[in-house]
Amino acid sequence: MTTDITASFSFTLDQPSDVLLQFEAAAIPEQHIIESHCSIGEADHIARIPAQDDIGERIWLHADGRFDIEYRASVEVRRRLDDLATLNRLEPHELPGEAVQYLFDSRYCPASQFQPFVNAEFGQLSGGQLVLAMQDWINQRFTYEPGSSTPQTTALDSFVERRGICRDFTHVMITLARAAAIPARYLSVYDPGVNPPDFHAVAEVFLADPEIPGGGVWHIIDATRMADPATTVKIGVGRDAADVSFMTTFGYAHFQAKEVLVTARN
Amino acid sequence: MTTDITASFSFTLDQPSDVLLQFEAAAIPEQHIIESHCSIGEADHIARIPAQDDIGERIWLHADGRFDIEYRASVEVRRRLDDLATLNRLEPHELPGEAVQYLFDSRYCPASQFQPFVNAEFGQLSGGQLVLAMQDWINQRFTYEPGSSTPQTTALDSFVERRGICRDFTHVMITLARAAAIPARYLSVYDPGVNPPDFHAVAEVFLADPEIPGGGVWHIIDATRMADPATTVKIGVGRDAADVSFMTTFGYAHFQAKEVLVTARN
Amino acid sequence: MTTDITASFSFTLDQPSDVLLQFEAAAIPEQHIIESHCSIGEADHIARIPAQDDIGERIWLHADGRFDIEYRASVEVRRRLDDLATLNRLEPHELPGEAVQYLFDSRYCPASQFQPFVNAEFGQLSGGQLVLAMQDWINQRFTYEPGSSTPQTTALDSFVERRGICRDFTHVMITLARAAAIPARYLSVYDPGVNPPDFHAVAEVFLADPEIPGGGVWHIIDATRMADPATTVKIGVGRDAADVSFMTTFGYAHFQAKEVLVTARN
Amino acid sequence: MTTDITASFSFTLDQPSDVLLQFEAAAIPEQHIIESHCSIGEADHIARIPAQDDIGERIWLHADGRFDIEYRASVEVRRRLDDLATLNRLEPHELPGEAVQYLFDSRYCPASQFQPFVNAEFGQLSGGQLVLAMQDWINQRFTYEPGSSTPQTTALDSFVERRGICRDFTHVMITLARAAAIPARYLSVYDPGVNPPDFHAVAEVFLADPEIPGGGVWHIIDATRMADPATTVKIGVGRDAADVSFMTTFGYAHFQAKEVLVTARN
Repeated sequence: MTTDITASFSFTLDQPSDVLLQFEAAAIPEQHIIESHCSIGEADHIARIPAQDDIGERIWLHADGRFDIEYRASVEVRRRLDDLATLNRLEPHELPGEAVQYLFDSRYCPASQFQPFVNAEFGQLSGGQLVLAMQDWINQRFTYEPGSSTPQTTALDSFVERRGICRDFTHVMITLARAAAIPARYLSVYDPGVNPPDFHAVAEVFLADPEIPGGGVWHIIDATRMADPATTVKIGVGRDAADVSFMTTFGYAHFQAKEVLVTARN
Repeated sequence: MTTDITASFSFTLDQPSDVLLQFEAAAIPEQHIIESHCSIGEADHIARIPAQDDIGERIWLHADGRFDIEYRASVEVRRRLDDLATLNRLEPHELPGEAVQYLFDSRYCPASQFQPFVNAEFGQLSGGQLVLAMQDWINQRFTYEPGSSTPQTTALDSFVERRGICRDFTHVMITLARAAAIPARYLSVYDPGVNPPDFHAVAEVFLADPEIPGGGVWHIIDATRMADPATTVKIGVGRDAADVSFMTTFGYAHFQAKEVLVTARN
Repeated sequence: MTTDITASFSFTLDQPSDVLLQFEAAAIPEQHIIESHCSIGEADHIARIPAQDDIGERIWLHADGRFDIEYRASVEVRRRLDDLATLNRLEPHELPGEAVQYLFDSRYCPASQFQPFVNAEFGQLSGGQLVLAMQDWINQRFTYEPGSSTPQTTALDSFVERRGICRDFTHVMITLARAAAIPARYLSVYDPGVNPPDFHAVAEVFLADPEIPGGGVWHIIDATRMADPATTVKIGVGRDAADVSFMTTFGYAHFQAKEVLVTARN
Repeated sequence: MTTDITASFSFTLDQPSDVLLQFEAAAIPEQHIIESHCSIGEADHIARIPAQDDIGERIWLHADGRFDIEYRASVEVRRRLDDLATLNRLEPHELPGEAVQYLFDSRYCPASQFQPFVNAEFGQLSGGQLVLAMQDWINQRFTYEPGSSTPQTTALDSFVERRGICRDFTHVMITLARAAAIPARYLSVYDPGVNPPDFHAVAEVFLADPEIPGGGVWHIIDATRMADPATTVKIGVGRDAADVSFMTTFGYAHFQAKEVLVTARN
């Protein structure tokens, strides 16, 4: 499948400021960038740095005044789409170094507090079936309700409030998975099936690779069920929303406008 | 300087469990492991994996019953000991990918909330002088008080409670530095000057390298002022205490005993 | 001074619901209701109950559909306006039962955590001078910034974020006073000098009555400095914002419109 | 039933300090104090003040040095012991002023966040049956585990951690009841069936009086199921644990010893 992205963003800086951006499709094996075009306005300084886990890049700007960014890309998505129900987990002691950090508590995902709940509710399940049961559990109980959460809302809040946006669904998904010793990370994506299609958040869990003994593979899991892993384009990953922001400003910025169109074709 | 470490730990597992350990001096350029000996008891499975930022290793065990770990090491510490007061900061847009994650909010360090305070209190300072002023600010106002904090205590709590242990002092130090756009991470260390000498926590901040334009160096800063960077031996790093635990058990463990002796010699 | 209030509120209930309202000037000795008119729409059930500390009333409605409330009042304010700087505190052991509950931690005011800060920052002051110093401290450091806080924001958050609306300024004021063992409560008021003039929040502190040995008097203190106690009309009191809401709905309500005009005359 | 209480407490004050105590059986109609003896050591100042809702008294001391309190009481418990399953709730709009404050969020009981959960889990139940279902829900899922919670632990924490002491069970019970618009308060009690028998915490909920139309009665409900309302002796009530402390010190106290014996007889 090929996913086409057309995006434009505008913002204004009141004084010379540093801005960190992350909005491009990541150039990684599972998604081939057929073509892309990125035009960033005038800046004193533009630098690209590798983003977390070397998935995608972040862009540093030092700039002033109004900024208009145009981004277009066509991305061929060719990731493995295993049936999660058939996948085992890796035992904790089999986890490689890269996955271990995604077992720990993070800003919005205080996973260790959730162990008694996860044991009681899902204790008899394991691996991909456990992950799917967690996705069901959230999806059946939570309401997607824009405006019901704030940037301070944690998975602890969302778990009792049972509503939120994709960010909140994903924080609860990550938290439950980690509480069951399954590494889970936060993914910012473009997906044609989501409305709005930009900067949707989904979780990724690390499960056993059925083909390589002791090996593991990251799999997308969306507790909102709005994204389709066959067309999802990854922008970047992190522990949780604290790590994967479209724009972080060191100074004062006014966000002006955003327009994003994402479509899929065979 | 050479730091000698002798440590023994015992714990008992009620059933076959996975355990993640991190207690050895990290083999990194700034500290040369002259010799070391590590004896871990019987286990079905022992695996070493690289720890965060490739600083040190974590050890996975799958084991049962009683466990006795003996660890001895002699470490020659030869890190750069710049006078922080002379060091500049890197502008945010100069920061490399490896340092950027240490700008973000983490489990115990909600740095973005502290920006107004940091601007008001330290706005006129920069770089190493800013970091030293933050260390002073904490050190003069906080009381080291074992038992006054819990594993849930965040930098937000400690900031008003003005007391805690090394973990809490360090969380506030990290939080203030990040709020000023200086990357800061959490470091678990052995240090002969600290009582007890094991698993002391200090912060590390990323400042400009005076010798390499655009380059940066991590520097130890201890808000408790108990550690001496000339003798401090690094075990591991992380975003905050959530990432750097001596022992994480996936199952049920009873901690039995711990005995650690750390001394320095020229 | 006489304060004139004209207010209208509209809301719509989707189904028969219970609503708790509190918006009228309290009939208490310090403010004489010269005249008032309150028209509430059609309801199956309207009941007035005494509000907290017998200051003002709350109105229970059981109703359905659209609701329009019109309220007009002229209130002669004649409260004591002592110079706070001249007032002593009551020693804790002198406090009467009615004031003691206002020493304790409440939903948004975790005062006990702030004792070390309050001792360090204000330890040499006492009574009204202490309260005025706390008002100054907040007023000089905090920015009044609508939209910067949420209904979940506590005094702990506001204390580091140093911004908020009247609710947040007042929560910090209450928290600091309680941490110094001065009873403090939350007050919802009309005040002509405030924009918008409706449902402004201020604190009240309990200090020694210079005329009655062992007696105490509640005094208004506004950390935003927008209200003038000579014209402030009290609606109701509580531990914090959790207790004093203009409207609490048990069911689903849509708020339609609110228009309030408050003026003062001699 | 008659409950006999013998209690002794000792503490030491380092300097002249104010202390607020609440440890006596409340003299209220539902529990007749057959006899009682209270000996408090030497103090400059001893004053009794009515406690919250006029249930019991608090004692203010101003004192220095070592303090030994001896308290003995025989209390005939004769409260109504309705079968909760038969009791209706009062509609919110029927609630009297005294009960309304117990609908609101408090320090440890952020009830409004729990409404979606309570509606989903218990939406089809009402009144006493709802309260009993909540008691069951907690009792079946939670583990009584001394040391697993701290004085900062809220009902939000306990709800996911699913363990705690009587204080935590009671906070969750109160929170769920309030989220269903049933007034609920925190009760500190002596009860012979509890180990240790002193300062046990239970909840009280306000339900319809079957004998008086529109009237309500408070009923004890213990999510730990350790207390028996037929022998429980009430000490005091509050919004949550923040309000009902055995001892609050304004200054520095060392707690020395506590010995309590509570027995029941017919």
